[in-house]
Amino acid sequence: MNTRMVLKSLGIVIMTEGLCMVLPLIVSLIYGQGDAMSFVVSILVSVAAGFILYRIPIKNRNFYARDGFAVVALSWIVISLFGSVPFIISGAIPSFIDAFFETVSGFTTTGSTILQEIESLPRGILFWRSFTHWMGGMGVLVLTLAVLPSIGVGSLHIMKAESTGPSTEKLVPKLGQTAKILYTIYTVMTAIQIIFLLIAGMPLYDSIIHAFGSAGTGGFSNRNLSVGSYGNVYIEIIITVFTILFGVNFGLYYRLIKGDRRSLLKDEEFIFYIGTIIVSIALITADLCKNGLFTFGQSLRHSSFQVGTIITTTGYSTTDFNLWPAFSKVILVVLMLFGACAGSTGGGIKCIRILLLFKTVRREIARIIHPRAVHTVKTNHRVNDEETLTGILTYFFIYSAVFVVSTLLISINGKDLITSVTSVIATLSNIGPGLGLVGPMGNFSGFSPFSKLVFCFDMIAGRLEFLPMLVLFSPMAWKKGNM
Amino acid sequence: MNTRMVLKSLGIVIMTEGLCMVLPLIVSLIYGQGDAMSFVVSILVSVAAGFILYRIPIKNRNFYARDGFAVVALSWIVISLFGSVPFIISGAIPSFIDAFFETVSGFTTTGSTILQEIESLPRGILFWRSFTHWMGGMGVLVLTLAVLPSIGVGSLHIMKAESTGPSTEKLVPKLGQTAKILYTIYTVMTAIQIIFLLIAGMPLYDSIIHAFGSAGTGGFSNRNLSVGSYGNVYIEIIITVFTILFGVNFGLYYRLIKGDRRSLLKDEEFIFYIGTIIVSIALITADLCKNGLFTFGQSLRHSSFQVGTIITTTGYSTTDFNLWPAFSKVILVVLMLFGACAGSTGGGIKCIRILLLFKTVRREIARIIHPRAVHTVKTNHRVNDEETLTGILTYFFIYSAVFVVSTLLISINGKDLITSVTSVIATLSNIGPGLGLVGPMGNFSGFSPFSKLVFCFDMIAGRLEFLPMLVLFSPMAWKKGNM
Repeated sequence: MNTRMVLKSLGIVIMTEGLCMVLPLIVSLIYGQGDAMSFVVSILVSVAAGFILYRIPIKNRNFYARDGFAVVALSWIVISLFGSVPFIISGAIPSFIDAFFETVSGFTTTGSTILQEIESLPRGILFWRSFTHWMGGMGVLVLTLAVLPSIGVGSLHIMKAESTGPSTEKLVPKLGQTAKILYTIYTVMTAIQIIFLLIAGMPLYDSIIHAFGSAGTGGFSNRNLSVGSYGNVYIEIIITVFTILFGVNFGLYYRLIKGDRRSLLKDEEFIFYIGTIIVSIALITADLCKNGLFTFGQSLRHSSFQVGTIITTTGYSTTDFNLWPAFSKVILVVLMLFGACAGSTGGGIKCIRILLLFKTVRREIARIIHPRAVHTVKTNHRVNDEETLTGILTYFFIYSAVFVVSTLLISINGKDLITSVTSVIATLSNIGPGLGLVGPMGNFSGFSPFSKLVFCFDMIAGRLEFLPMLVLFSPMAWKKGNM
Repeated sequence: MNTRMVLKSLGIVIMTEGLCMVLPLIVSLIYGQGDAMSFVVSILVSVAAGFILYRIPIKNRNFYARDGFAVVALSWIVISLFGSVPFIISGAIPSFIDAFFETVSGFTTTGSTILQEIESLPRGILFWRSFTHWMGGMGVLVLTLAVLPSIGVGSLHIMKAESTGPSTEKLVPKLGQTAKILYTIYTVMTAIQIIFLLIAGMPLYDSIIHAFGSAGTGGFSNRNLSVGSYGNVYIEIIITVFTILFGVNFGLYYRLIKGDRRSLLKDEEFIFYIGTIIVSIALITADLCKNGLFTFGQSLRHSSFQVGTIITTTGYSTTDFNLWPAFSKVILVVLMLFGACAGSTGGGIKCIRILLLFKTVRREIARIIHPRAVHTVKTNHRVNDEETLTGILTYFFIYSAVFVVSTLLISINGKDLITSVTSVIATLSNIGPGLGLVGPMGNFSGFSPFSKLVFCFDMIAGRLEFLPMLVLFSPMAWKKGNM
């Protein structure tokens, strides 16, 4: 491991984070609720600590994949540590573990909360809480690359380790340029959503908070009852549509802007994603109607909102789906596993992986039926290489293994099985709410500090799609010969 | 598909089954409870139907892997159909779907039951119910091969498709001989268990029933309260030890008999299997003690019995583990997924696959850390080829996908999530009881006929490790060109 280079890179990321805190500082100054000082201190601490690390002299410039993976994993831990400082200093979340949990949940766009009462917190603090969603959605290091392309060396490894999905696409030859394009599309879409929410009658502050939550597919709200508190169907439609849009591969938007309209409608992952959404809405609407819970109109409204917010792993709620019939709940849990598209801000396994997993099974059957034929697995008419397929199959097992081990560790709390199981899925897939005690009307405050640390690991591991965290925690990576 | 050859092979299997029904016929004649006639009719029907199929003239002798897979999948469906006839005719289980479910559960050594009251049924019927465990444990087609090696053509494909685990080992060059060796070891071990149970004070009939249930790792009992009804610690110890022994790869026993003592103690899967058992017993004992449910002695007794019977996917119970704390329940569910060793009579994913899956993850991490080194995955000092590893990774995904789809279909019943989820695991891993309504004190009678068919599919698919059933139900296999 090139420790010096790793530390230097961390320094840059922490400084960037410190600069980003200027925004919530401005918000806190506007509203004057006494939280401004906590941001001033946090900014100074972050910039100073970042600068010290940044000044570490570099001995060798070799930067391998393992260093890139370690930088990404460490960055996410470190930004969560520094990001929790305002919560602690302001007294909004006095416990360190709780503040760390909340910040990890923010950056990883999970949206799980330990807060039982949100509305009484100062607006600067709540702004920062939601702004972490926005930064984390597209990637904290991608943001750093967009701002400071000079981080230069090894940035492809970093981009690979941070972006979502099985393969990383460079939109343009230069990585810094790619990062800029991604953040521009992201910013413009967020701004459009804010305007729509304003038109629908949402206050400006709330619009910004909920646009951050939708854009990053995070799910933090400034209301205790989440989006349900507005009881406004237009707001619900806007949030549904935008979360679904933010769950699409941003590479497709770039091609759309470049005038290539067909690539969107021909993209297999996009079709699978939209198809899954439509089928799920239809099935849940039918189930809710059949069970007499709502009228047809209400069923369609609630099922559309919940399907959109769950498959994109956003996690906003307008109703307590904990009380829905078993069939609808199982569909929601399946969507939690699926997640959104690769290259989007969404979490979960990702639609392209689910699609390729099924195609791999199909090939395995075809191999038995026609043992002498050559069998390939294609997406969008292009053959996937075997390494990608093995990578996806392995990813799926890692997801399952981390899920099982985490459930085992969480069950030590003695909570019921549904709570234990879905709290792990909700954090691992970066959704937010689960079922049982962590349902839309519940929260994560009742777990032990040890459990909260397990959740933090799961949120970061899930967001980074495991390998960076596994490399970081692997003794192999820290052996003398690799340093 | 070579339809004629497939049908002819089915004929042989059905005839063999008919001959096996002579045993329960003898039992029913001994006890004279009026069920003898149902066996006479069933034997006549099976032998006649089998003979008609057997007489189909063969046009071509080409027998490919796909034909072998189809024969195995169809055999398991067909023997369950013919095997359910005695239950229906005798009036023990008047409903066809229920009788089919019970027979599938028997042959696949699942041990899930739709019966609410067992003790009042005639002894010939209960003998047949448990005898299906014994036949299914080692494989119905392996049994046919042992009896009639003349089935000849394509038997390697058949053996591959029916035996458990990722790779099939021929103990001796001739397959018929291998089948004979396996059944001899199996019979001798079953006989030894019967003798032990008799010494411990169990009546002869009960000893035979419980030896069949242990040997096949099935779990049917002739008592409503299962093994718990005897309240005899020696019986519990004997059943624990024997189920664990029947969960070991029979190839290791063959080598032990040949004088190779080391292979058992050096076998990685065996060590992993025994290690998992010991660790699980220790953790559950501690959890039960901590929660004050039992004394230390009782905790050790119940946890040992339950761990042994669950990891081997037998499913006997001495206590209602539904009432255990969450941590213990999660461990049991994990053991349900693990299952026993490859080449044993147990179900589940199998220890060797779990071991190799973790080694594959380790390799993936090593590849990032040392990208230029050559990375292999070894077991017992031998390198596994990539095809085997991809096969295991794919198997794991198929297991998960069938699990998710089945849970979705079962949840239409509207039962609680724990019941829906664990009933699927219990059938897919061929265990028997799950949690909730299908816990040790519950049964499967409350599900809809559609759900019962889903369970039947899962039990057979799980027992045959998916590919035979997927090939059979794949439209690809039935295209004209392949017939």
